[in-house]
Amino acid sequence: MDNRPIGVFDSGVGGLTALREIKALLPHEDIVYFGDTGRLPYGSKSRDTIIRFAQQIIRFLLSKDVKILVAACGTISSTLPAAVSENLPVPYFGVVEPAAQAACALSQNERIGVIATKTSIRNNAYGRAIHTIRPKARVFGCACPLLVPLVEDNHIAGDDPIARMIVSYYLENLRPHDIDTLILGCTHYPMLYDIINETLDYSVTLVDPGRETARCVQTFLTMHGMLSAREERGKCSYYMTDSAEDFCSVASIFLSDDIRKDARQIDITESEGKEPS
Amino acid sequence: MDNRPIGVFDSGVGGLTALREIKALLPHEDIVYFGDTGRLPYGSKSRDTIIRFAQQIIRFLLSKDVKILVAACGTISSTLPAAVSENLPVPYFGVVEPAAQAACALSQNERIGVIATKTSIRNNAYGRAIHTIRPKARVFGCACPLLVPLVEDNHIAGDDPIARMIVSYYLENLRPHDIDTLILGCTHYPMLYDIINETLDYSVTLVDPGRETARCVQTFLTMHGMLSAREERGKCSYYMTDSAEDFCSVASIFLSDDIRKDARQIDITESEGKEPS
Repeated sequence: MDNRPIGVFDSGVGGLTALREIKALLPHEDIVYFGDTGRLPYGSKSRDTIIRFAQQIIRFLLSKDVKILVAACGTISSTLPAAVSENLPVPYFGVVEPAAQAACALSQNERIGVIATKTSIRNNAYGRAIHTIRPKARVFGCACPLLVPLVEDNHIAGDDPIARMIVSYYLENLRPHDIDTLILGCTHYPMLYDIINETLDYSVTLVDPGRETARCVQTFLTMHGMLSAREERGKCSYYMTDSAEDFCSVASIFLSDDIRKDARQIDITESEGKEPS
Repeated sequence: MDNRPIGVFDSGVGGLTALREIKALLPHEDIVYFGDTGRLPYGSKSRDTIIRFAQQIIRFLLSKDVKILVAACGTISSTLPAAVSENLPVPYFGVVEPAAQAACALSQNERIGVIATKTSIRNNAYGRAIHTIRPKARVFGCACPLLVPLVEDNHIAGDDPIARMIVSYYLENLRPHDIDTLILGCTHYPMLYDIINETLDYSVTLVDPGRETARCVQTFLTMHGMLSAREERGKCSYYMTDSAEDFCSVASIFLSDDIRKDARQIDITESEGKEPS
């Protein structure tokens, strides 16, 4: 038994789709969430910058005594080198491997699509993870750089005309490839689940990396006797690098919940986690 | 005469549209450009964060001994308080006042549109600047949060279908207001000049804040005897907070020029302008 919190981090609010799944599967766990809203988006940033930012966030979460780290962000997961993630003092999960495993289990025709940020598509992390499991699978990637700003700007309603236009514009690239499974390779994208599902008017199974990662975390904690012993519901605390008010306003769409009393803005670049004076 | 450089800064590459205009009007001036690509976009960040970032950038440019500071960014210009900008050791120009002056001079029917980032529209900086000059003018603002990612992602060709769709989606909001002048209130937007011009199928004059600001800087330096005495062409140096290679690749679209030998990535948060080791 281990009552320490689970640490979940993302460049912004996207990782809240993973947090939501972890809360649903593991309701007695405390969670510390970190969203780097002051420096998002990560998807268009260079590899070195993403690694540097991720290491600052990991140091901050370790200072909160987390028992496990979850990079609930496709870009960070696909960028952080094994040399970093394997040498952490606590277990680390990204969203790439869990999503790749699920896609390989679900695909019948071994033709798998991946939509993600530019960085994730460029480094082909999902493709490499899929080929480790199913070497013959064909993987078709499509960078969708406008989907994160779209979600952050709250264009998520099923009938939002601009969201439908942009989703349809990107998915058109995948149409010739006859995929039967599509990984939503960025944790923002599940917010567009219904629009993506409707736009794909042929039969494609969608894989939500946040959901798959939550399942892996549950299995890991159970197998290692690391579940919380608590009987009441776990608490969540939220840290972010831009306005807490703005964060909570977008978070309420993701979580259908008011988290203002648990949210706090901090500055990790200058003081490694001190609250700004 | 004053041979020190002009300091120009922006959250990213957008300010290069202003730099281009300054170079055209003042070819003998040296320019130091700063683009905060590691932390862009600013348009969706909170006021406090924008002010903190801008102050870091200003400190860096002052360390480069600039004779004048130009915030070539609608969001920074509309957010930096007079208490900061009026107490700097060198003259400061934002893009808001020059654009407002030009719009007031051009408009016949006193109905002026402004497209800009969320922050600039929310703080109504263009509207306030216009009303100082023409108190009876009607100002119609429209936040266009997807246009910056659109330009950064190189959707700028006149026939780009997604750029045309998104521009048309936003401008539709202005159609009922019968404007005769439109301020492109973010320095990225002049990259979409032709698409915006074509989409407005009625007669609207576009105002480019970078161009208007360049004119003001020229007038100011001339009036105060602060022009460079040099006869050869001025030099430009470029500093950015994310990969120099990525910056130069986008910059080449803005400037039609290869600037790689003059570009250098730095980290201003940790070391106030030291190059990363």
